[in-house]
Amino acid sequence: MAESKIKSHGYAAHSATKPLAPFSFERRSPGEHDVVVEIEYCGVCHSDIHQARNEWGGSNYPMVPGHEIVGKVTAVGSAVKKFKVGDLAGVGVIVDSCRECASCKAGEEQYCEVGMVQTYNTPDKQGEMTYGGYSNNIVTHEDFVHSVSPKLNPAGVAPLLCAGITTYSPLRHWKVGKGQKVGVVGLGGLGHMALKFAHSFGAHVVQFTTSLSKTEDAKRLGADEVVLSKDPEAMKAHANSFDFILDTVSAPHDMNAYLALLKRDGTMAQVGLPDKQPTIEMGNLLFKRRTLSGSIIGGMAETQEMLDYCAEHNITADVEVIPIDKINEAFERVLKSDVKYRFVIDMKSLKQG
Amino acid sequence: MAESKIKSHGYAAHSATKPLAPFSFERRSPGEHDVVVEIEYCGVCHSDIHQARNEWGGSNYPMVPGHEIVGKVTAVGSAVKKFKVGDLAGVGVIVDSCRECASCKAGEEQYCEVGMVQTYNTPDKQGEMTYGGYSNNIVTHEDFVHSVSPKLNPAGVAPLLCAGITTYSPLRHWKVGKGQKVGVVGLGGLGHMALKFAHSFGAHVVQFTTSLSKTEDAKRLGADEVVLSKDPEAMKAHANSFDFILDTVSAPHDMNAYLALLKRDGTMAQVGLPDKQPTIEMGNLLFKRRTLSGSIIGGMAETQEMLDYCAEHNITADVEVIPIDKINEAFERVLKSDVKYRFVIDMKSLKQG
Repeated sequence: MAESKIKSHGYAAHSATKPLAPFSFERRSPGEHDVVVEIEYCGVCHSDIHQARNEWGGSNYPMVPGHEIVGKVTAVGSAVKKFKVGDLAGVGVIVDSCRECASCKAGEEQYCEVGMVQTYNTPDKQGEMTYGGYSNNIVTHEDFVHSVSPKLNPAGVAPLLCAGITTYSPLRHWKVGKGQKVGVVGLGGLGHMALKFAHSFGAHVVQFTTSLSKTEDAKRLGADEVVLSKDPEAMKAHANSFDFILDTVSAPHDMNAYLALLKRDGTMAQVGLPDKQPTIEMGNLLFKRRTLSGSIIGGMAETQEMLDYCAEHNITADVEVIPIDKINEAFERVLKSDVKYRFVIDMKSLKQG
Repeated sequence: MAESKIKSHGYAAHSATKPLAPFSFERRSPGEHDVVVEIEYCGVCHSDIHQARNEWGGSNYPMVPGHEIVGKVTAVGSAVKKFKVGDLAGVGVIVDSCRECASCKAGEEQYCEVGMVQTYNTPDKQGEMTYGGYSNNIVTHEDFVHSVSPKLNPAGVAPLLCAGITTYSPLRHWKVGKGQKVGVVGLGGLGHMALKFAHSFGAHVVQFTTSLSKTEDAKRLGADEVVLSKDPEAMKAHANSFDFILDTVSAPHDMNAYLALLKRDGTMAQVGLPDKQPTIEMGNLLFKRRTLSGSIIGGMAETQEMLDYCAEHNITADVEVIPIDKINEAFERVLKSDVKYRFVIDMKSLKQG
C-alpha cells in the first residue's frame, strides 16, 4: 500500500454560520490494518447539523460531517483480514477507541472510558482531525468497518450505521420481544427504525405522535397502535401498561407523561440527547420502581449483528436520496421534520473537486 | 373471638398544625384472619411527620401515625395459621392490598395497582380509616403481619419494618453484593440501615456525607470509605466507579453529581421521595447507559425475608428509645437530624387513656 496520503474531497462546514461548501483535503496514508472505502452513500443525521452549527460546542472547522457511510472497499492494508477489494462496507459513528478500558473490552466501544474517536470532528490517536462521510472516500481501521450485505439497497443501509444501531441497541439491551408492549416516542430517522425493529422483534408496538396524520405511515412501519401524545385521555388509557418506551425526541417534551405509562419495573430509555434538561417527577419512578435510562449508538460487534439481522429480515431505512449540492436545503428540511425518514447523499453526485 | 370492637388509645394529630395529643378510639372487631398485636415499640419515621403535618396533602384527622410496629400477639382469629398468642410480631407500612393485580400476585404488594392500604391515614376495604402504631394495639390480617425473632432487641427491630425494608429491598432488587462498589447518600434512619445491609451483603461501601464529623460513625455502621459530597475533588476521584448508589435523601440535592459517579450500566435508586423534583442531566444517563430509578418499602415475603436475615446476622437499627409524651419533641429533633438513628417509642409509657 502506498505511503502517500490519500486525496479526498467532499463538502465541509467552514464555520458555524456558513452553508456547507465543496472542500478538498487529505486522509492518512493507509496503515496495515486500514481499509479504504470509496463512499457511495452517506446519511444525513440531525447531529451533523448540531455539530456543523456548533450547537453542542467544541466544533472544529473545516468540518466534513457524515457518519452513516456505505461504500466499496478499494484498498486494504497488508494485515487486514475482514475485507478485500470490492467488498461492500459500512462505517458508522466511531472510527477508534482505546480498546483497553472495561467498556472496550466488553465490546461496548461507544462507552469507551478514555473517549471514542468519532468519525468526524474528533482528533484521532495521531492528533489529526477526523473527517466524515460527506466525501468521496474514508480510511478506517478494519475493527471499525462493518460488512454490508449486497442483498440490501445500499442507500437504505447507510442510516442503519447511526439511526439503526441507536435504536437496535437499546431494544436488545432491554430485551424487547414477544409478549411485551413497547412505545416509541417520535417518528423521525430514529423513530421509524425503532418501529421496524420493535415490530420485527415481536413486540406490540405503540407509536406516540403529536399528529394523527402520521397514523397510516406509522402502521406501515410497524406500529400496532398510534396514540396522540397531546390527548390526556388517550394517554391515560395506556397508564401502567408499557414494558419499555424508547424516546427518540431531543426537542423539549414532558418525559413524565411517558414515565407514567410504564408498568412496575418498566424502563424508558432516551436516545435523543435533549437540548434542555428535563425535570423528573421522582414519584413516577419510586411508586412503580420504574427506571429512566439512556443509550448511545452501539458497540462494533452489535453493529455488525444489527446489519446481519437487517440483511436476514430485509430491513432498511426509508430514505430520500439527494445529490450533495442539495445538502444545505436538506439541513433546513431536517429541522422542519420534512423528510421520510432520512436524507441520504448519493456520492456519485460529488464532482471531482 | 369476640364480636365487639377493640378499645385502643394512643397519640394522634388532630390537625396539621397542633402537636400530637392523647386519643382514644376503637379498632375493628378481629375477623377470622386477623391478629391482635399489643404494641411494645413503634419507630418514628420522617413520613409520620410529613403526614401528621399534611405536607403531602390528603391527610385525615384525627391521625394516629406509626408504621414500624413490634409487639406481642394477644389474640388470633379462628383461621389464623401463622401466629399464636404470645408470639412476637411486626407490622410495617402496609396492612392490606388488592391481592389480585400483577404486582400483588408477584409478591410486590407495595406496588399494588389498585392501591395498598397503609397502616394509618388510609381507608381500609370497609371504608374505615386506619390508625397506626403510636397506640397500644393493632388489628391486622395475618398476611400483613410478620414474625419477629425473640433473638433481637425488639426496640431495634421496629425500624426494620420501614427503614429496614426500604433499604434492603432495592439492595436486593439490584443484586448488590461482593465485588461491587456501592454508595449510600444520606446517613439518617434509612442511610444507617443501608450501610449495615450493603456491608453485610459483602459490597465495598462508600458513605457520602455533608460533614466529615460523621466519618467514625459511618465506618462503625459498615462504610469502607466516607466521601465529603461538597468537595468536588473528592467526588471526582470516584467518577465512573460505582455499581450502585442508594440515595436516601429527600431534601433537595444535586442528583447529577452522584449519577456521574456510576459506572457504565450503573444504577442510582432513590428511596427518599424528594420534596422538590430534580432536573436530570440526561447526558449523564446516555453516555454511560446509566439508570435512575426508585423504590418504596418492599413486599410482604421480602419483609419477612429481611427480618429473618436480620435475626440470622444480628442486625437491628440504632435507636433512641423515648416515652410517648416526648413524641412532639422527637418530631422536632428528627427535622434537625438530631437522632442516631431512629426514635422508637416505648409503648409501656402510654398510660391507660
